[in-house]
Amino acid sequence: MSFTLENIQQARARIAPYILQTPLLRLPALDPYLGCQVYVKAECMQITGAFKLRGAMNKMLSLPREQLEQGVAAASSGNHGRALSYAAKMLGVRATIIMPDTAPPVKLDAIRELGAEIVQCAPQDRYATADRVCAEQGSVLVPPFNDEDIMAGQGTAGLEIVERCPEVDTVIVPLSGGGLLGGVSTAVKALSPNTKVYGAEPAPLPRYSASLAQGEPVTVPQQPTIADALIGNRPGSLCFPVIQAHVDGVAAVDDPVTLRAMKLLLTQGKLLAEPSSCIGIGAVLQGLIPVSPEDKVCFLLSGGNVGLEQLRILEDIPL
Amino acid sequence: MSFTLENIQQARARIAPYILQTPLLRLPALDPYLGCQVYVKAECMQITGAFKLRGAMNKMLSLPREQLEQGVAAASSGNHGRALSYAAKMLGVRATIIMPDTAPPVKLDAIRELGAEIVQCAPQDRYATADRVCAEQGSVLVPPFNDEDIMAGQGTAGLEIVERCPEVDTVIVPLSGGGLLGGVSTAVKALSPNTKVYGAEPAPLPRYSASLAQGEPVTVPQQPTIADALIGNRPGSLCFPVIQAHVDGVAAVDDPVTLRAMKLLLTQGKLLAEPSSCIGIGAVLQGLIPVSPEDKVCFLLSGGNVGLEQLRILEDIPL
Repeated sequence: MSFTLENIQQARARIAPYILQTPLLRLPALDPYLGCQVYVKAECMQITGAFKLRGAMNKMLSLPREQLEQGVAAASSGNHGRALSYAAKMLGVRATIIMPDTAPPVKLDAIRELGAEIVQCAPQDRYATADRVCAEQGSVLVPPFNDEDIMAGQGTAGLEIVERCPEVDTVIVPLSGGGLLGGVSTAVKALSPNTKVYGAEPAPLPRYSASLAQGEPVTVPQQPTIADALIGNRPGSLCFPVIQAHVDGVAAVDDPVTLRAMKLLLTQGKLLAEPSSCIGIGAVLQGLIPVSPEDKVCFLLSGGNVGLEQLRILEDIPL
Repeated sequence: MSFTLENIQQARARIAPYILQTPLLRLPALDPYLGCQVYVKAECMQITGAFKLRGAMNKMLSLPREQLEQGVAAASSGNHGRALSYAAKMLGVRATIIMPDTAPPVKLDAIRELGAEIVQCAPQDRYATADRVCAEQGSVLVPPFNDEDIMAGQGTAGLEIVERCPEVDTVIVPLSGGGLLGGVSTAVKALSPNTKVYGAEPAPLPRYSASLAQGEPVTVPQQPTIADALIGNRPGSLCFPVIQAHVDGVAAVDDPVTLRAMKLLLTQGKLLAEPSSCIGIGAVLQGLIPVSPEDKVCFLLSGGNVGLEQLRILEDIPL
């Protein structure tokens, strides 16, 4: 496979001045609920509030300068667009962000504040709209996941997990198109082959569960999910073989369990993360990933961009 | 002064098996709001959700065994009672907790779950009620702050701050009776004399501001405050001289600013802490404590016991 640890190590050297090494936290208050020793990689504390800055920054820093200066564009449910907007601002180039009509206001506002232009469209039209914008502007499309430079950037979070906690038994990662899980699983398996790596995706959109069963990428029907950063309905063609090669399993988590996980993280762990971030905790709550009380299990919390008004739905959920 | 670093070091050895060394986190997302390099000591992640376990556990482990076996009791607005209940359960003795009628349900429930007995009364009657309960039961009163063993236990958080961040310029601590600030200021000034230490108290209950101006402990009128863990109306007689000797200043913070600080910590820092915990951040927001952009400023987040329904009041507060 052409995508290896080396890609990720090069990405790290490139993006190090621009990103945070986010904390890896031990959260013993969650142990009794999850039946393992709970660690979290708090990418919800990353600049722009999500891991996406790692990939976006690596992609932009890998472009030839003359191409970069034409500006960049992206189709994004929010966090990728926000990351690209910030990276463009840091590097002094123009960014245009294509966002679905369903994106929460907090994500739209955050992108506007970063100085990027926003174009909204129906979720299923977002890739076509991005292509049109790029053709009109001459700007470079920065894909959200299906790109080796993006995967390499996201994988730097995996390097940090293993370096900070070399004895980690299991790493669980939110999964949509596969950029984050592709990068993280490559890094973790290269440095610590005995560590298990799992993906967690929304049960309404089981694109990886279905594709791994089929042995090739398949498209699942577009469905709404509370995990609004995980709305891809098909694996990335470059991500799929990487994940197929490295990952020990993928769990399809029910939305109500993801919300319960979010409440647990907030009230017992004292950390705010968006619903999509909590899906890995949901996977263990739902009994979909095997863990035992001695296992050190690291949950990657992918982002923290959630409006306070969204927390109301947690009030009536039992822990 | 008889209360020194040595008391705190002995406390640490005693309580180490029972408490967490909570994370010291760098939160750069808060820097632009506060005008300094923001660090937090996350005692909101301590077992039982607050720093209070340090002092309660040290006090109980300092009692003669035959006295401890009579059981313990405390008057508490919540976190001290919760800590004592947990410590009693760990050590296999009975606990009775006297709580004000105004305590939020989340705090009452937490204590009940820990197996302690609860006696409720009006806030101003809580010390008298505790004395009566102890007389009836033969149990030992564990005071919330005005006790050298309590101060020594709380001070262990100060040891951890300086050890984890030796270059810290300023430490800011929530202040009520003075147990936490007394202990932390003693530890910090002994290990790092050039580090500034400040207390932050609610403006409606400025018991330390008034007492320091007067040169002796004075009583201020009991008033309600959003900082419901900081409702003492008079400094502890043992805490006051310690704080007078070590602390660089005390800020009296307006309640609306404390709520703004809580929203900032939650939405930008991704950490959930109770209003009382956020008062130090409020002190800097309100311009009451001098900081500069190069300063490493550590805010002690004293506790995280807050019900989700309480977060609704944050929705309309501007950042």
